[in-house]
Amino acid sequence: MNRLDALKKIAARLRVHSLEMTTAAGSGHPTTCLSMADLTAALFFGEMRFNPADPDDWGNDEIVFSKGHAAPILWAAYAEAGIVPLESLRDLRKITSVLEGHPTPRMPWIKAATGSLGQGLSVGAGMAAAMKLGKSPGRAFVVLGDGECAEGSVWEAANAAALLDLANLCAVVDVNRLGQSDPTMHQYRLSAYARKFAAFGWETVVIDGHDLESIVEALSSAGRLSRPLAIIARTVKGKGVSFLEDKNGWHGKPLKKDELEKALEEIGPRPGIEARKWLRAPRKAVRPKLKSRTDFVRTDYKDKTATRLAYGNALKALGRVHEGVVAIDGDVKNSTYADQFFEAFPSRSFQSYIAEQNMVGMGMGLAAKGYLPFMATFAAFLTRAHDQIRMAAYSFSNIKLCGSHVGVSIGEDGPSQMGLEDLAIFRPIPGCVVLYPSDAVSAEACVAEMAKYKGMCYLRTTRPAVPVLYGKDEAFPIGGSKTLRKGASDFAAVIAAGVTVFEALKAYEELKKDGIEIRVIDAYSVQPLDEAGIVKAAAETRGRVVVVEDHFEGGGLGDAVAAALAGRAEIKHLCVRELPRSGKPEELLDRYGISARHISAAIRSFEISK
Amino acid sequence: MNRLDALKKIAARLRVHSLEMTTAAGSGHPTTCLSMADLTAALFFGEMRFNPADPDDWGNDEIVFSKGHAAPILWAAYAEAGIVPLESLRDLRKITSVLEGHPTPRMPWIKAATGSLGQGLSVGAGMAAAMKLGKSPGRAFVVLGDGECAEGSVWEAANAAALLDLANLCAVVDVNRLGQSDPTMHQYRLSAYARKFAAFGWETVVIDGHDLESIVEALSSAGRLSRPLAIIARTVKGKGVSFLEDKNGWHGKPLKKDELEKALEEIGPRPGIEARKWLRAPRKAVRPKLKSRTDFVRTDYKDKTATRLAYGNALKALGRVHEGVVAIDGDVKNSTYADQFFEAFPSRSFQSYIAEQNMVGMGMGLAAKGYLPFMATFAAFLTRAHDQIRMAAYSFSNIKLCGSHVGVSIGEDGPSQMGLEDLAIFRPIPGCVVLYPSDAVSAEACVAEMAKYKGMCYLRTTRPAVPVLYGKDEAFPIGGSKTLRKGASDFAAVIAAGVTVFEALKAYEELKKDGIEIRVIDAYSVQPLDEAGIVKAAAETRGRVVVVEDHFEGGGLGDAVAAALAGRAEIKHLCVRELPRSGKPEELLDRYGISARHISAAIRSFEISK
Repeated sequence: MNRLDALKKIAARLRVHSLEMTTAAGSGHPTTCLSMADLTAALFFGEMRFNPADPDDWGNDEIVFSKGHAAPILWAAYAEAGIVPLESLRDLRKITSVLEGHPTPRMPWIKAATGSLGQGLSVGAGMAAAMKLGKSPGRAFVVLGDGECAEGSVWEAANAAALLDLANLCAVVDVNRLGQSDPTMHQYRLSAYARKFAAFGWETVVIDGHDLESIVEALSSAGRLSRPLAIIARTVKGKGVSFLEDKNGWHGKPLKKDELEKALEEIGPRPGIEARKWLRAPRKAVRPKLKSRTDFVRTDYKDKTATRLAYGNALKALGRVHEGVVAIDGDVKNSTYADQFFEAFPSRSFQSYIAEQNMVGMGMGLAAKGYLPFMATFAAFLTRAHDQIRMAAYSFSNIKLCGSHVGVSIGEDGPSQMGLEDLAIFRPIPGCVVLYPSDAVSAEACVAEMAKYKGMCYLRTTRPAVPVLYGKDEAFPIGGSKTLRKGASDFAAVIAAGVTVFEALKAYEELKKDGIEIRVIDAYSVQPLDEAGIVKAAAETRGRVVVVEDHFEGGGLGDAVAAALAGRAEIKHLCVRELPRSGKPEELLDRYGISARHISAAIRSFEISK
Repeated sequence: MNRLDALKKIAARLRVHSLEMTTAAGSGHPTTCLSMADLTAALFFGEMRFNPADPDDWGNDEIVFSKGHAAPILWAAYAEAGIVPLESLRDLRKITSVLEGHPTPRMPWIKAATGSLGQGLSVGAGMAAAMKLGKSPGRAFVVLGDGECAEGSVWEAANAAALLDLANLCAVVDVNRLGQSDPTMHQYRLSAYARKFAAFGWETVVIDGHDLESIVEALSSAGRLSRPLAIIARTVKGKGVSFLEDKNGWHGKPLKKDELEKALEEIGPRPGIEARKWLRAPRKAVRPKLKSRTDFVRTDYKDKTATRLAYGNALKALGRVHEGVVAIDGDVKNSTYADQFFEAFPSRSFQSYIAEQNMVGMGMGLAAKGYLPFMATFAAFLTRAHDQIRMAAYSFSNIKLCGSHVGVSIGEDGPSQMGLEDLAIFRPIPGCVVLYPSDAVSAEACVAEMAKYKGMCYLRTTRPAVPVLYGKDEAFPIGGSKTLRKGASDFAAVIAAGVTVFEALKAYEELKKDGIEIRVIDAYSVQPLDEAGIVKAAAETRGRVVVVEDHFEGGGLGDAVAAALAGRAEIKHLCVRELPRSGKPEELLDRYGISARHISAAIRSFEISK
């Protein structure tokens, strides 16, 4: 039997599995699996090289199903490859199974969760970049639907991949003409997709996605051209089953039992073939052994320094002792100060230009291949990548994000540049560490903590230079806090972070003149919060707590403290409660109620009320 | 004097203003203004038609500076047009001035805030769609930087504009070669930009952006072709000042006093010309008078109904009595049930395909022209448009968003499709109304409330069908709550919303058997929260409160209640605290701790502890 005959048989088996497993589950997307069956067979058993015994073999090709709703056929392919038992396909979508409705890394061969469309190409680009960096012979394949090509993130990725010369990246676009609610934008005008990829700097080829010979030939170019390759494949949604083929209204619908019987009759008996015999072994390759220490030499700060500059210093110092650290920029590295790393380690630095979604998506891909990506942009612009950040969480992705220029304290540039909702992006993510250092020393320490922690971390940095509060070797463990002012019988406690710590210290001085002593706490670890420390402080200050933060009311430090202290303290929450405007930083802190004056007033109002 | 000579003089004045005002402010982006000066002069005083006395004249052309950091020259153009006093330019970026660092609608001619790059083209597309719909002769011009063309949102907009045949839309790309931290991706390869726009279905022309004759000629085609037009203009950053021209490192830096003097010498004396004489009047046009009632006929529900279906019903009913209502879809209208509106009102319905950023951006544009846009997608995918939502807030944009398929209650599709962080997106936005109805009746009422409210609103709907709780005519005012179970001496209060209301009612029944009576509150208005009602309920239940929600811990109803009750109650917060997985809805509600069983246990744990 030649390979083409084998692939035909395997494709038929994949079709049968996809239909059976979605009917068993009672939900799922069988028709989109049928359009993909020949492409999937050719990818897994015709072109890709991987070691079925080891998902982390450095020689492996990687595959990302960006169209995550085609998960059933992906699981079927892994079953045919002998990686999961064939019987396990029956458990699709069950709470006990790792074969979820959309792919997640609970199944170890999945390196990034998909299902929010348009994200896979960035992940593939990150993997391809990692393979280039680590001298893997592998290639990254990404399967996209035609519908998801409306997502801008696809074009951010296409742009970056071409500019970064990722010739080891191959996109396969499954043009099955039908979206969820309507025909897709270009229907069968395949040239429209090809023109777009070509304009973005890719090699392109248009094929019949059900002609295995064409598919195999097209795929064989992957990694052999000087540019990334897009294969635009014309397919039929529901291919192989007459009453499903090219019919609108069948998206995301499993067949009923009797429909399934009819469909299986049309496809014919499941061909007997041991698919795994057709797998292609990877080329021998050894993952580079990289120094990966996190105890970098910290800077000795004396003068006023912005925490964003300390981030830059720390990232460069970390890069020296940890060779797995890579950085990705969205053309703001001279503001976030990631530029220091870029200058020191150009081969480990990736310019993604002004494309935050791709920045985070590529980070997921680099992390999936074992690198430790740090990404920084203005905190405000991380909102642009919120969906990618969410999907990185479901990917259990070890990525590190830094948002600079937070809050009204940036001043004159105005509200579009002020990160005032970033804590509300990261706090909801289970397991995500959120750090918000006040000074340069703590900012550097936080970078070290982020590098040590396995999982997503977010660091919040500020624009203006601020005094140094801490000694060079002070530790800032995740989940801790620092008590900066403490008396024997403090009247109230102020819980602050970042720039408002300095306002709290000013309020302390002002109140002291009137004989009012307050506790001042630097809650640099917003998540996990130092709940025990804060509960104790509240108890010791008779339940009088002021929280002050340069963030909107919802989702930030105030909410975190309120949740920790519920029932245990009276909390006054000073935060930005209006849509702010341009102005000088100090004017804005005062106008929006988070300056020393307002802290003092909040403290004094306790006195009156009790 | 002919128009070309006039434009040259006006351009020189715009250059002088831009330099002077940024030096006076001590911050800002003069060099990007200099590259734009000739284009801006030609746009405002050569091609665009508008009535300087009325920003809402229905015949006006509209302009969006997507590259919002060029704000100074935009303000200068409005000053030269006589719309703001020339003297006011001196107040750029002051806290007292509406001439902010990046454009916001505090200045009445700005209809959408910009400054987060890549968003303006969607806004322009929305304006162009509104003009077509309302038969305005106006055109929408959008000025983009070359750097921001890396943003995927630009290509979502380009795609939508071509597919929607928005021939009245014109993009002007200011290719000045230099980004913030690096040269831009294509530098002076202007054909690269032209190829991309052409591949996305646009007419394109490449010009010298400092040759006024070419600029005027290119602009004169705007609105006269059968497709949207992209003008790719080669410019020089810092044009006109030798020591700034094409120099990296000058992004976002104002000149010092002595540098300013040197620069002004090079540009020469400010030409004496009354620019406003060169303004072109708009064509006469009358804004359509549209019926705009919000008291639509509500459906009489008897059977179990999903709140998402009620949204669809209500939107269609609203569309009948309010002709300004328009809908935009991201190819999920058969899941959000917006499809009913699409079928009933095709001319007021816009398919944006799978491109959530463009959906929200177009909504901002339609709202800016006076329409009332409703947009729906899976709540999870609104994370994709978080930056656009943020900018819509700074635009004071009257847009209405619906997120369907929230929480683990969607079941088998798995975490990528579960909206578990959407409340944390909308709650931080000052003035944003957040509604989360439990049943079909309240969902319909909430749609009416959203239509009445001036400003951004978010409606959270759920996938599964649920029983009807309320009578057809029950009112659900913004800021209210409903007490569903109340006894004379309730032991504790459960505050729920959406699908967990039904779990709370089950817990009520279960506890009642043991003689434990509880208060059950439907907190359908998450923001503003019914603080008074909830404080009262907490007081009447001896400070024992359970909050239960199908959302992650941070940023949702639990945080809102904790903030409202701080110091007044012991709160147990039941919510999704892990990254969830695929499974049956009822299994997932139970596994992640938000089912009736967990509510009962939380209530009983109060008993033990007090």
